[in-house]
Amino acid sequence: METRKKIEVCFSPALFKEYRNPQAIAVVVDILRATSAIVTAFMNGVSRIIPVETLQEAEDFKKRGFLVAAERDGLVQPFADFGNSPFNFTKERVYGQQIVYSTTNGTQAIHEAGECHQILIGAYLNFSALSDWLIRQQRDIIILCAGWKNKFNIEDTLFAGALTERVLQHRDFYTICDSALVSIDLYRLAKTDLPGYIEKAAQRHRLRKNNLDDVIEYCHTFDLTSLIPVFEKDHLAVLPS
Amino acid sequence: METRKKIEVCFSPALFKEYRNPQAIAVVVDILRATSAIVTAFMNGVSRIIPVETLQEAEDFKKRGFLVAAERDGLVQPFADFGNSPFNFTKERVYGQQIVYSTTNGTQAIHEAGECHQILIGAYLNFSALSDWLIRQQRDIIILCAGWKNKFNIEDTLFAGALTERVLQHRDFYTICDSALVSIDLYRLAKTDLPGYIEKAAQRHRLRKNNLDDVIEYCHTFDLTSLIPVFEKDHLAVLPS
Repeated sequence: METRKKIEVCFSPALFKEYRNPQAIAVVVDILRATSAIVTAFMNGVSRIIPVETLQEAEDFKKRGFLVAAERDGLVQPFADFGNSPFNFTKERVYGQQIVYSTTNGTQAIHEAGECHQILIGAYLNFSALSDWLIRQQRDIIILCAGWKNKFNIEDTLFAGALTERVLQHRDFYTICDSALVSIDLYRLAKTDLPGYIEKAAQRHRLRKNNLDDVIEYCHTFDLTSLIPVFEKDHLAVLPS
Repeated sequence: METRKKIEVCFSPALFKEYRNPQAIAVVVDILRATSAIVTAFMNGVSRIIPVETLQEAEDFKKRGFLVAAERDGLVQPFADFGNSPFNFTKERVYGQQIVYSTTNGTQAIHEAGECHQILIGAYLNFSALSDWLIRQQRDIIILCAGWKNKFNIEDTLFAGALTERVLQHRDFYTICDSALVSIDLYRLAKTDLPGYIEKAAQRHRLRKNNLDDVIEYCHTFDLTSLIPVFEKDHLAVLPS
C-alpha cells in the first residue's frame, strides 16, 4: 500500500473538479499578481482579507465602509481603493485593516478549492516557509494554478514546478501527475532567469500593455516573508507561526 | 491589424469552451492510442470510422452488425471486436470496412470540437502531411489534446509542441497562447528521445500495467502515411489528396 502522500498540479480552476480530494491541502497560486499581492498585504500588517467573487459583492462591501481591492483584466475598478498590484498594499495604507478583494482569476480559484482540507496562498515571496510547512503536515497537496480566465498560464505553472520539486525532495511525497512532472521540467528550464522566461507569457504582455509590469521582478523574489495566508471560512488570515 | 493566423493548444476537452473559434481548424490528438489507431486504420484501408461517445451506442452498433472498437481505461470492452491498439487495425481485419469507435478520451474530444470549421485527426504517423496541409489552409488552428479524463497529459502535449513548432516556422502563423509556447519547450526538451521522455507519463504506467505498452515506439514514429482523417458530419473519412 502506498503510504506516501501525493502532490498534484491543476492547471486551471475549470479542471479542479477532476482533482477533488477533501483530505488534501490546496495551494492557490496567481503569481501575477493576486497571490503575490495577498502575501504582501499580510507582510504589511493587513489583519484579514475577504475574497469575493463578483464585482457587485466588492462594491457592496465598499458601500459598507470596507477597504476594497478589485481588478478585472489587470485594471483597478472605479469604485475600488486599489487593484492587485502588490505595490498598492503598503504599510501606510493597509496596516491593521481588513480588505475585501476580488480579482479576475485569483478569488475564483480560492472558492473553487472550497472542499479541500485547507486552502493556502502561495507565492515566491513565502516559498520556503510554505514548502516546509506543507512537508510537515504529511497530507496530500494540490497546487491550483489560477491561470487566466480558465486557461493555462506559464507563470503559475513555473511556481507549481518550483514547489513540487521542493516537496518531492522529501521522501514522504510522490507524484504520478503529468501536470506536476511537466511543471518541474519547465521550472528547471526557466529557473536561472524566471522573469526572462516569462517574457513570452501572455500575462507579461497584458501587464506591459497597461504599464503594470513593474511588479514582475518583485513577484519572482524568493522568501521575503515566512507568513502563510490561509482561508478560514470566509476570509484569509495568516497561519500561526 | 493582425493578418497572420493564430495557433493555440488546448490541454483538455474540459477547457475547449475557452477556445471556441468557429473559423478555426481543430486537430484532435490522443497519441496513446486513439488518434494513432485511427490513422493506422485508414492506412490499412478502413472506409470510414464512426466515433461514438458512449459504450451503449457502441454496443447498439455492434448488434446491428458493425465492426466495433471500444475501450475504457485501456481495456477492450467485452462486446467489442477490438480496443484501441493500433496493432488491432490490421489490413486483414479492417480493409474496406466501416468501424464504430468509442474510447476513454479520444471520441469525446472529437465531439467537443464540433463547432469548429473542420476537425482533423493528428498523430506522429501523419505529422508532415498534416502540418503541410494546415499551413496551406491559412486558417486559425486549435490543437485539442484529448488528455486523460479531462486532465492534462504529457504525450499529447509533446505532439502539440511538435506541430506548433512546425506551423510557426511559417511566417503566416503566430501564437500568444501560453499552452502552445510551453508545448514547444517541452517538445524540444524531449524530442531526441520521445519514448524515453514519456517514461514518466501516467499513461505509460497505465499501459505497462495492462501489458499494452508495445505500441509506444510505433505511436511515436513520424510520417508513415500522408493520409489525414477528417470528421464529416457523423463519421471520419480521409481528406482527398
